[in-house]
Amino acid sequence: MQQPRLSIAELDRLLCAEFPQAFNTQSGLRIKEVWHGGARVERAFDGASLRPGGTISGPTIMMLADVTIYIAILATIGWVPLAVTTNLSVNFLRKPGPGALVAECRLVKVGKRLAVGEIAIRSVGQEDMVAHAVSTYSIPSRSADGDIIPSN
Amino acid sequence: MQQPRLSIAELDRLLCAEFPQAFNTQSGLRIKEVWHGGARVERAFDGASLRPGGTISGPTIMMLADVTIYIAILATIGWVPLAVTTNLSVNFLRKPGPGALVAECRLVKVGKRLAVGEIAIRSVGQEDMVAHAVSTYSIPSRSADGDIIPSN
Amino acid sequence: MQQPRLSIAELDRLLCAEFPQAFNTQSGLRIKEVWHGGARVERAFDGASLRPGGTISGPTIMMLADVTIYIAILATIGWVPLAVTTNLSVNFLRKPGPGALVAECRLVKVGKRLAVGEIAIRSVGQEDMVAHAVSTYSIPSRSADGDIIPSN
Amino acid sequence: MQQPRLSIAELDRLLCAEFPQAFNTQSGLRIKEVWHGGARVERAFDGASLRPGGTISGPTIMMLADVTIYIAILATIGWVPLAVTTNLSVNFLRKPGPGALVAECRLVKVGKRLAVGEIAIRSVGQEDMVAHAVSTYSIPSRSADGDIIPSN
Repeated sequence: MQQPRLSIAELDRLLCAEFPQAFNTQSGLRIKEVWHGGARVERAFDGASLRPGGTISGPTIMMLADVTIYIAILATIGWVPLAVTTNLSVNFLRKPGPGALVAECRLVKVGKRLAVGEIAIRSVGQEDMVAHAVSTYSIPSRSADGDIIPSN
Repeated sequence: MQQPRLSIAELDRLLCAEFPQAFNTQSGLRIKEVWHGGARVERAFDGASLRPGGTISGPTIMMLADVTIYIAILATIGWVPLAVTTNLSVNFLRKPGPGALVAECRLVKVGKRLAVGEIAIRSVGQEDMVAHAVSTYSIPSRSADGDIIPSN
Repeated sequence: MQQPRLSIAELDRLLCAEFPQAFNTQSGLRIKEVWHGGARVERAFDGASLRPGGTISGPTIMMLADVTIYIAILATIGWVPLAVTTNLSVNFLRKPGPGALVAECRLVKVGKRLAVGEIAIRSVGQEDMVAHAVSTYSIPSRSADGDIIPSN
Repeated sequence: MQQPRLSIAELDRLLCAEFPQAFNTQSGLRIKEVWHGGARVERAFDGASLRPGGTISGPTIMMLADVTIYIAILATIGWVPLAVTTNLSVNFLRKPGPGALVAECRLVKVGKRLAVGEIAIRSVGQEDMVAHAVSTYSIPSRSADGDIIPSN
């Protein structure tokens, strides 16, 4: 089994440094596990994401899906912060109750230009998915000496 | 041409009352136009949604897409606040610069149980789309006397 | 573990009788396994589905994905032939070489009105997916006496 | 307004020569119009695509969507036969009756590496869509002298 290119500690440090708006001590995001080809990320409960009926907002779930595949890609191919989402498709399956969410991403393709993964989102401790997402990221080209070539 | 079932003023009032976390004077959302089968909604620029490189975050764009189709559905079939997103699929096309966004939704189906719409998102004043989304909402059944029958 | 509602033999018989254009001795489709919540279906190789470069056409792959989730739904909830696809989203990951394909569907939601599943498609005997699909089916309402109520 | 790079006659000739399995005098496909950024393609009615209830099969609709965006891309950027579908997402909106279908594609992005378009599919002569699709194609890189560089 291949090792991830970046550990949880390395990812935490790099993400907080580069994306302070999204990753910070307040954001409630916590990388639980990374491996070659995937990642598992939790999001602590946060009253601001509640919607009428006591459920968590769709955008909160989409953001967690997007962050989790991004972390899975970084863990698998190394630090390419300029990888960008080109598609995110989410099916909302059940309304999550108030509580922490956990997303698990499994990459189904890691190509030179595109990575694709599916993401299962659950309430922590529950088996049924609250949402299922599939997302594609575009990976910037690198020149022979490692520089990123602008694309697209 | 059919009139919308709810005016901008009615939608503003109902949404602020029922979804104070998402619609409030701080949220920056502004319904610009509604018609039978569609809606146009702007989102004011907000520093918290900025990402490195001066672009606006994906979740911000997805939230605007989701709100806009919701408003288009309400304007078209009347007040059904329990309509819920079942699918949202977004293609990110170009990185928006810092600035206000405008989303325009056109419903392509309004059935008894499902409504489907496509949403074009642009930076205000620009022609090229920054993102294109398609979303499906599930519409709750109503009994003969107008009560909502739980479903799904 | 729950048993499927319909066995492979029952599904074969019902599908051939009701959908003779799609399921027949020529179609090359073969149900390999069904269980409560999923199905695995093979499609024999067929020269007419070849494309330049020796790969299998996209529509062939989409058809196999669509058939496989349909069979998974029937195996799980019983014979509801009027269930219809409302959405099918496919990511094409690698070009399959000429040869048989196998699709495996796992349902992630089976509600009263909607069923959602993800489908992995591979070349027989290979581990990497050639495509990954997610699909939603609308399930017709049934009245108390089992009649189907037209919807949507 | 920019001219298309390839005319209908040129596309007909090239497609029949390169994809004889999909484009031939029997396939029933007819390019009705192309422009810089889009295309309109008809598919004649064909008894083999009928399903119970007198409707046209989902895979037939998906194939027409896929062909139409491919033609739109070729008309817009010129002959890149190795462009491949990376994603196709279809919402089925209404059951088409037996009859010819027409698909109209509008490209919403034409980048160096990816092209994205939306496709409206209708029964010929009717206003309501029977399906709406969004698709992404990957465009092969070209070296400075026009050779295609394998990717992905």
